[in-house]
Amino acid sequence: MSDVFLALVEQTLAEVLPSFRPAVLSEAMRYAVGTGGKRIRPLVCLASAVAVGGKAEDAKYPAAAIELLHNYTLIHDDLPAMDNDRERRGKPTVWVKFGEANAILAGDALLALAYQVAAKAPRNIAAIIDVLGEKGVGVVQGQVEDVSCSKFGVSKPQTSNLKPQTDDFIYRHKTADLFIAAAAMGGLAGGGSDADVAALREFALNLGLAFQYEDDLLDGDGIYPPEETERLVHETTAAAVAALDQLPCDTTFLRELAHKLIGRKV
Amino acid sequence: MSDVFLALVEQTLAEVLPSFRPAVLSEAMRYAVGTGGKRIRPLVCLASAVAVGGKAEDAKYPAAAIELLHNYTLIHDDLPAMDNDRERRGKPTVWVKFGEANAILAGDALLALAYQVAAKAPRNIAAIIDVLGEKGVGVVQGQVEDVSCSKFGVSKPQTSNLKPQTDDFIYRHKTADLFIAAAAMGGLAGGGSDADVAALREFALNLGLAFQYEDDLLDGDGIYPPEETERLVHETTAAAVAALDQLPCDTTFLRELAHKLIGRKV
Repeated sequence: MSDVFLALVEQTLAEVLPSFRPAVLSEAMRYAVGTGGKRIRPLVCLASAVAVGGKAEDAKYPAAAIELLHNYTLIHDDLPAMDNDRERRGKPTVWVKFGEANAILAGDALLALAYQVAAKAPRNIAAIIDVLGEKGVGVVQGQVEDVSCSKFGVSKPQTSNLKPQTDDFIYRHKTADLFIAAAAMGGLAGGGSDADVAALREFALNLGLAFQYEDDLLDGDGIYPPEETERLVHETTAAAVAALDQLPCDTTFLRELAHKLIGRKV
Repeated sequence: MSDVFLALVEQTLAEVLPSFRPAVLSEAMRYAVGTGGKRIRPLVCLASAVAVGGKAEDAKYPAAAIELLHNYTLIHDDLPAMDNDRERRGKPTVWVKFGEANAILAGDALLALAYQVAAKAPRNIAAIIDVLGEKGVGVVQGQVEDVSCSKFGVSKPQTSNLKPQTDDFIYRHKTADLFIAAAAMGGLAGGGSDADVAALREFALNLGLAFQYEDDLLDGDGIYPPEETERLVHETTAAAVAALDQLPCDTTFLRELAHKLIGRKV
């Protein structure tokens, strides 16, 4: 099933990514989105449509849209004015390969394209664009907070009382917001009820947080001491599972995805 | 009438611009959009709704959206990696005032917000997001072409055979695309027919080109010799007027706007 979903994601991305003038722009956009990645967010989107009783196909455009949006955030995060990263996934970052101006602009074009693509969903387009807009802004809020904290040394090392509060804000926005948008758009495109979409949002928020805490455990650089972080992984994981139980149809694939994301703890 | 429309634009922008955490982000967004500008694109949007028989109120969110999107393009165009401008409208540019990272991110947030706001239109949301997506990408195509040409010295001075072809592409995308989006979204939000929207797009394309040629005449740095540019102003102006004649309702305000934009030649 995962292979079928992944093929649908790759096929839809190939369909929507442009080949237009100027060539350097469409090349940079394609380079950034790449092929063969894990595509976690679009898979969450497709599986959410299934979990409310729709077809994966219903959510293919919102799924492609969230991947375009995710990749624009990576391009801009890597810029010299932000994280100044020269490599990603073992390859030169977009600004290293295409220049800084083209990297900023390729990110901009992916963001605009994401909305155009999401609006091709078969239903509930106003609500789909609303959540993609809200979370598209939210992810920027998280990034601005992150950049400010790094600059003023609040985030690392763990010296400030502000840290847990600040990092929680960053986790919710930088990490969880795109998962929430993916799940909510999938539920809406699949024709889910308001209650279904609310459950999917709850699932995705907790999945995003669990994912981030798990990451902290692995990296050994979390907000809280390891035992507390471990407790939070379990707490958010349990909340994610509880939210899945509220959904009317098959949630197998969402559970499987959660397994992969947070070390088989869901 | 212009004052009433302008008040509606300012009121809607004030309603949709956020005051959220982190404060530096919402402050940068508000600073960029400002108050008291000419607001040409949103006025075209409102007047287009009227021209198809709708109310200006129907188009207030798409009108705010096009102004948000326009201002994101200005923030990013001003960046050191692009035009490296330190002042705009007599004030420090966003990157000078808030730093480069925050300027990139404030632009990103305005772009995402634009789509969320446009989706609040009372009808035809799929088509509204489609055109705002298409032209949101288009304006980036124009900017990438412009940046590439400046870099390789194609655009100025007038030494290359490529120049008219290249500059026409840039004019269509950098200048006309946002006018087209403004007019088409207004027509769609106002409940216009497909033929009405096509006529509005034709009007806006020609208005955008006429505006740019007029600008070239004033600056004395056009693609073509002055007599040819003058001829093109007349030709595109006539095409814009002819397009207005195809609309079913009151086009007075669109004509007035065109007057202001291109030296009372429409």
